[in-house]
Order: sequence, then C-alpha cells, then structure tokens
Amino acid sequence: MPKGFPTTVPDDGLTTRQRRNRPLLIVHTGEMKGKSTAAFGLALRAWNQGWPVGVFQFVKSAKWKVGEEAAFRALGRVHEHSGEGAPVEWHKMGEGWSWIQRERLDEDADRSARDAREGWAQIKRDLAAEKFGCYVLDEFTYPMTWGWVEVAEVIETLADRPGHQHVIITGRGADPALIQAADLVVEMTKIKHPMDAGQKGQRGIEW
Amino acid sequence: MPKGFPTTVPDDGLTTRQRRNRPLLIVHTGEMKGKSTAAFGLALRAWNQGWPVGVFQFVKSAKWKVGEEAAFRALGRVHEHSGEGAPVEWHKMGEGWSWIQRERLDEDADRSARDAREGWAQIKRDLAAEKFGCYVLDEFTYPMTWGWVEVAEVIETLADRPGHQHVIITGRGADPALIQAADLVVEMTKIKHPMDAGQKGQRGIEW
Repeated sequence: MPKGFPTTVPDDGLTTRQRRNRPLLIVHTGEMKGKSTAAFGLALRAWNQGWPVGVFQFVKSAKWKVGEEAAFRALGRVHEHSGEGAPVEWHKMGEGWSWIQRERLDEDADRSARDAREGWAQIKRDLAAEKFGCYVLDEFTYPMTWGWVEVAEVIETLADRPGHQHVIITGRGADPALIQAADLVVEMTKIKHPMDAGQKGQRGIEW
Repeated sequence: MPKGFPTTVPDDGLTTRQRRNRPLLIVHTGEMKGKSTAAFGLALRAWNQGWPVGVFQFVKSAKWKVGEEAAFRALGRVHEHSGEGAPVEWHKMGEGWSWIQRERLDEDADRSARDAREGWAQIKRDLAAEKFGCYVLDEFTYPMTWGWVEVAEVIETLADRPGHQHVIITGRGADPALIQAADLVVEMTKIKHPMDAGQKGQRGIEW
C-alpha cells in the first residue's frame, strides 16, 4: 500500500480532490510546549501559499511570542514590498485588541471576559468576510474553558465558515466537543523540561 | 509558589542567571505532526533575538517544508536589507547539500549515508566555529537510527559545543541516549488526523 494512503474512504459525496483541499480545523493541545510554535510553523506555510494570515492572541501578557510576532510582521512587510507570500495581521488581547479604540482599564476578570468576547466577535466577522486563509487562535481554549465564549457557538460558527479558511486553535484542555469537531488534533506531551532541572525560562526559547 | 518557579535547584555550581541562559539541546519526537513546525517556530524566536539560524534538513524530498524555507529565506533577506533579525542559512540533504560541488548521482542508500555524514560533518564545523545561535537539525533522528551517524559521537559533540548555541533535533524514534542528553524533549502525540477520515495531505498544510 502506498505511503500516506488513507485507511478509509468516507461516504461524504466529495471527490478525493474536494476532500483533499477541504479547509481544516486544527487543534494543538496538551500540557507541553510546542502548541503555539507548531501553529506558527503552519502559518509560515500558509504565508508561502499566498494565504492571508490572521493571528489572534488570547493571552494577557505581551511578553510572550514577541519573536514570532516580529518575524510575521517582517513577513507581512515582505509581502507589501515585493508581493511575495501574503498579508499578515497580528492582534493581541493583552493590548485590548488593535481594532478597538478606548481607554485602557484596570485588569479584571470582567474586562478579560469582555475582551475575549470581542476577539471572538471580530473573528466571526473576518470568517464571514473570508478575510484570511489561515487563522491562528492562540490560547483560545482558555476563554472557552472559562465560559467567556460559548463552545457550542464556536463549533457551529467554524462548521459553517464559508470558503477555504484554515483555523488553528491552541491551548491546554481543549473541550471534548472541540476535539470532536476538529479535523486534526495534536497533543504535545512532556517528556523532559529544563524546569525539572531547576532552569527557568529564557529569552529566545520561551519568547 | 510563583508560577514557573523551578521545583528543584540543582547542585551544579552555576548561578541562576548562568543556568537560565544555558544553551539548550531540544528534541521534538513522537509519531505526530508538529515536530518540525514547532522547531521552526522556535527558530523564529531565535531570528528575532538576532541569533543566526542554521537549518539542516536530513530528508530526501525537496517537496516538504517549502513554506518554512521560503519564509525563512525571506527573513534572511529582511536581515540583509534592514539589519532586523538575523542571518538565515537553509541546507537540504535532498539536493546534496549546498556547500558540496559534485555531479548528482542516482539515489541509493550509500549515497544517503554519505550525504548524512557530510551534513553532520558540516554541523560539527559550524558548532566549532560558533556560526549559528540556533540550529534546526530536521529529521536528524533517522540517520542516527539507521547508523549513518553515531549517536554517541553526536551526543559528545553537542555536550562539548562552545558558546551559546541552541540545537533542536526533530524526528521520530529519538534514541534513548539522545533523550537522556537533551534539556527539553517534547513528544507529539496523535489524537486525530484527517487521514483517518480518508483525507490526503494538502498544500499549505503538509508542506
């Protein structure tokens, strides 16, 4: 049997070609590092295909992932100047989302819940407009876990998304219903971590 | 206890700062996707830190990872033109390594073994010269598994490497001795894959 041959052929009325090019819902979950980094690696492939990349970081701290952000912003500029690759947008909840103009309030759970809901509302608008070819919803499992965003509504919206839009969701503790709905799920498992040997996080590795 | 606080403090004579900034040997293994993509995500962080990035792909096919390659080559050009980030070198065994000038021979196992050894020999030269701050040795577990490169010599060379050089090795079936020697090991575990549902690999996702 050829390598990479599917083990079953589904009865879904699609041709192999249609099935092959179906947009994917991908979930990276598990306790260990690599969930977001692998998602950004996929986004590099999307960029190279000319698919606009939209990153939505559902985290509070702006310290993390500055390396990926700087690199993707540089790739976005490469596209602007030379036409190579694709446009890139990078939005951060930790800074109150770039599209929202308002006074910065104190940190509180209500604000986080509202910010998370606003992030998801923007993603829904972008999905409806088919704005990006690749969405990275980084750490998006947490607002779902905390009930800030409704799991069932996320799944329904993603199932009904138009066109050819890949969506990658990262974060620990992905909801079983989200895993059920996803096309591809990877769990990052810890075998060994420097903190076990008394080493704290470091520049260039953790961010 | 603060988040991220190490659970043990080793008796290694290093200060916390020295320990924190120790260069890491990282291994991404396991059966599932994400090993290489997560390594390239880490390389984005290195690029942003201004650490030269060296990628050595120990795979035969030139089809795979073209997305990452194009993106990193673009980032290398960003550095050349603006000074932002860091230089990038991307070497492929599948094309006989860029630094070797010779007639392309037919594909055979002997040639692959020789190519793998030549790749490793170059990496040793680069490590000795402290050429890169971040090495991605992609699919490097296979030449080790197949005996083309000696595991003990790899481990010894990496243990003795000078300066501040992070090394990331990817591939299935990492040797137990390599896992023992590594500072950080992540296993990518399959939860669900589109091929289970009869879907073959697709552009922009698999490469």
